[in-house]
Amino acid sequence: MTEQSAVIVGGGFAGVACAKRLAKHDFSVTLIDKNNYHQFQPLLYQVATAELATSDITRPLRAIFKKYDNVHVHRAEVTHVDPETRTVSTADGHTFTGDYLVLAAGSQPNYFGTPGAGEHAFPLYTVEHAQALRTRLLTVLEEADANPARIDQGALNFVIVGAGPTGVETAGAIADAVNDVIPQRFHDLDINRARIYLVDHGPVVLAAFSDKAHAYAAERLEHRGVHLKLGTGVSEVLPDRVKLSDGTEILTRTVVWGGGIQAPAITAKLGLPQGRAGRVVTLPDLTVEGFPRVYALGDMANMPDHDGNDLPQLGSVALQSGAWAADNILADSTGKSRQPFHYKDKGIMAMIGDGAAVAEMGAHHHELHGHVAFAAWLGIHAYLMSGIRERVDSFVSWGWDFVGSSRSGAMLDDPERARIDWGDEDEVEAAVAAE
Amino acid sequence: MTEQSAVIVGGGFAGVACAKRLAKHDFSVTLIDKNNYHQFQPLLYQVATAELATSDITRPLRAIFKKYDNVHVHRAEVTHVDPETRTVSTADGHTFTGDYLVLAAGSQPNYFGTPGAGEHAFPLYTVEHAQALRTRLLTVLEEADANPARIDQGALNFVIVGAGPTGVETAGAIADAVNDVIPQRFHDLDINRARIYLVDHGPVVLAAFSDKAHAYAAERLEHRGVHLKLGTGVSEVLPDRVKLSDGTEILTRTVVWGGGIQAPAITAKLGLPQGRAGRVVTLPDLTVEGFPRVYALGDMANMPDHDGNDLPQLGSVALQSGAWAADNILADSTGKSRQPFHYKDKGIMAMIGDGAAVAEMGAHHHELHGHVAFAAWLGIHAYLMSGIRERVDSFVSWGWDFVGSSRSGAMLDDPERARIDWGDEDEVEAAVAAE
Repeated sequence: MTEQSAVIVGGGFAGVACAKRLAKHDFSVTLIDKNNYHQFQPLLYQVATAELATSDITRPLRAIFKKYDNVHVHRAEVTHVDPETRTVSTADGHTFTGDYLVLAAGSQPNYFGTPGAGEHAFPLYTVEHAQALRTRLLTVLEEADANPARIDQGALNFVIVGAGPTGVETAGAIADAVNDVIPQRFHDLDINRARIYLVDHGPVVLAAFSDKAHAYAAERLEHRGVHLKLGTGVSEVLPDRVKLSDGTEILTRTVVWGGGIQAPAITAKLGLPQGRAGRVVTLPDLTVEGFPRVYALGDMANMPDHDGNDLPQLGSVALQSGAWAADNILADSTGKSRQPFHYKDKGIMAMIGDGAAVAEMGAHHHELHGHVAFAAWLGIHAYLMSGIRERVDSFVSWGWDFVGSSRSGAMLDDPERARIDWGDEDEVEAAVAAE
Repeated sequence: MTEQSAVIVGGGFAGVACAKRLAKHDFSVTLIDKNNYHQFQPLLYQVATAELATSDITRPLRAIFKKYDNVHVHRAEVTHVDPETRTVSTADGHTFTGDYLVLAAGSQPNYFGTPGAGEHAFPLYTVEHAQALRTRLLTVLEEADANPARIDQGALNFVIVGAGPTGVETAGAIADAVNDVIPQRFHDLDINRARIYLVDHGPVVLAAFSDKAHAYAAERLEHRGVHLKLGTGVSEVLPDRVKLSDGTEILTRTVVWGGGIQAPAITAKLGLPQGRAGRVVTLPDLTVEGFPRVYALGDMANMPDHDGNDLPQLGSVALQSGAWAADNILADSTGKSRQPFHYKDKGIMAMIGDGAAVAEMGAHHHELHGHVAFAAWLGIHAYLMSGIRERVDSFVSWGWDFVGSSRSGAMLDDPERARIDWGDEDEVEAAVAAE
């Protein structure tokens, strides 16, 4: 049998899992991503809050596949996809055609039409997003330290939109920084004036979890100084403030957008069936209807569970869908039949900060809270990261940091580009002169 | 006695060492740097070659001084210094005056008037320099992998200018990458076509070392595939090539400038005595003549050794000068006399790569070569880094990586900005079409 080929778009959990499994067989795999690295997205919020460095949660795609000469990594932006011919074109003028096409291009933020959110809010879906938010957080702290008048302008107000895991974890990590780390670092800053707001239009935090988790997470966050504004939407994000649906305005330079994700821009041009949030709708075997050799996976796809509902956009779903798609592709060549995707639910978890977390483990979502959940969270992320990390000791180092709050990533890149326009520059000079 | 104050410009080895010692006394210290982090410069070449991540060799200044409330870190560009009044102005509109002023602003590259070097060569004195070089190295590899025609245009030619420690270590690290790492990562790239050139106008490599070291280093580098072009100067650096004094031209997109450093631009505006390479000339006690409460330290200064010669620009000289200056400042307040700086020469060392190094240890420069020198190099850098690192395990991790070549830093930031203009874009498309 001649060697078959697959073209995979996207080097995230789904794309890498699929490529890894195909690589062990007589398959030529082309993996296309606009970045040369894979990212461990569940810890992006720790990069944003400078607990981890970017290098701690990324790994070069070429390093992942160094033992597989049959995997060809191509770093380029995808400009066109033709599902009919299973052909992918890239911005650097190349074209790739495979016997199979795997679409696993991830997501982009969904601002739900909120004015100003795309321009002024900080989403948290990629390493670049995390770096931008980290730069902003470090910059407002430096500027408030140098000039206390900036605090009156909202430099120490942090508004997190969306009380799902991303929003809760980010709010918790900022609270940890405000309570524990910043007072040690900024000797002249009145950090007591910091305010952290977690805003959600729904009535609870961590809606996907149990009632007990809602209450526990809310109590822990409030205990750490996070102001919960539930049942409240965002009307507009401006460069210097955010307007909420209850009519309040909060002066701030840091609006974190954990408010949702949707299919990436290229999806609309594919000519494939689209469902909720514009994602590609798949059949149970993860192919797209009418295209038996085209798969859509991970965050980019609405994949049905055994009840026919869409599976959620989770790292574990993406990872399992990648391996499952590879198995179905391999089934074709061995004459076996493709199997409908069966997601093995290992549970959900979210870090709240300060040694607290919530976890619902296993298919029956056995509940854990507090330090036990924290330890479980640490252990499971250690295990997951070890799969993508080359350095056997990196997670030891990371666990150590986590406990020690060393903030290894608190390096402010390119301060000139990070400058914030505070409006009236005369005011600065007046404030300085008055010192 | 009332608290005294010092304003320190620069958070490098000298500035941090000075601030650390003053912080333990009744002193208010303002430490000004344009970055919020300290950098461990001896390992910049490893960041440039993706063996280390930037976070491995940087540490936030505020983390270094977290236990000292009397140290005030101010992140800003220095715009003006008045030695007369010991006043420093910064770009964000602040002004700082101290009882003592310590100038330790480091260096900038010295291109010696070489046309095009400032525009097209990659110096290696700061983390930003290392990141820019790393981005270029990763980009030429990706582009040569995607389009072999780029190799004809010099994508895999690497030209290192200057055969001092910086040039030798960079050439050795690139050779390690070409020989050991890249073949594993780039499965479709003909890496055998890579060429590494080390160019120096002098007759030997590592001129500051012994004759035996010259021969050993040259032999090891050539063995690893580095072409030595000694007795050869650089006439011009162009975007796509470099011209040498012997008339040869080498097509290349990667010219590394290890050719020398000089005083930073601000030095000329200080009105202080300037010596070799524009550096501030100090008296034996490290103050500047006529300014008994103004110190100049580290790479920015020409500090006399006991024979009256200028001490070299080395990390260990900078580190010791910082502590010595602090002692002299403290001597004033305790009524003791200032002491002339006595540099304790602990030797010099340079990594060649592939388990080889040269080291001349102690005041008598006892010579070590090969694996013994390599081990010594590793141990001494481990020791030095532990002084600036918070994570006790970081060096363990680093040593492990060094042996394992994991290239934790091989993440290509912002690929769009990194794009290289190869001239004729039609040619690309023709090449692609011909595949």
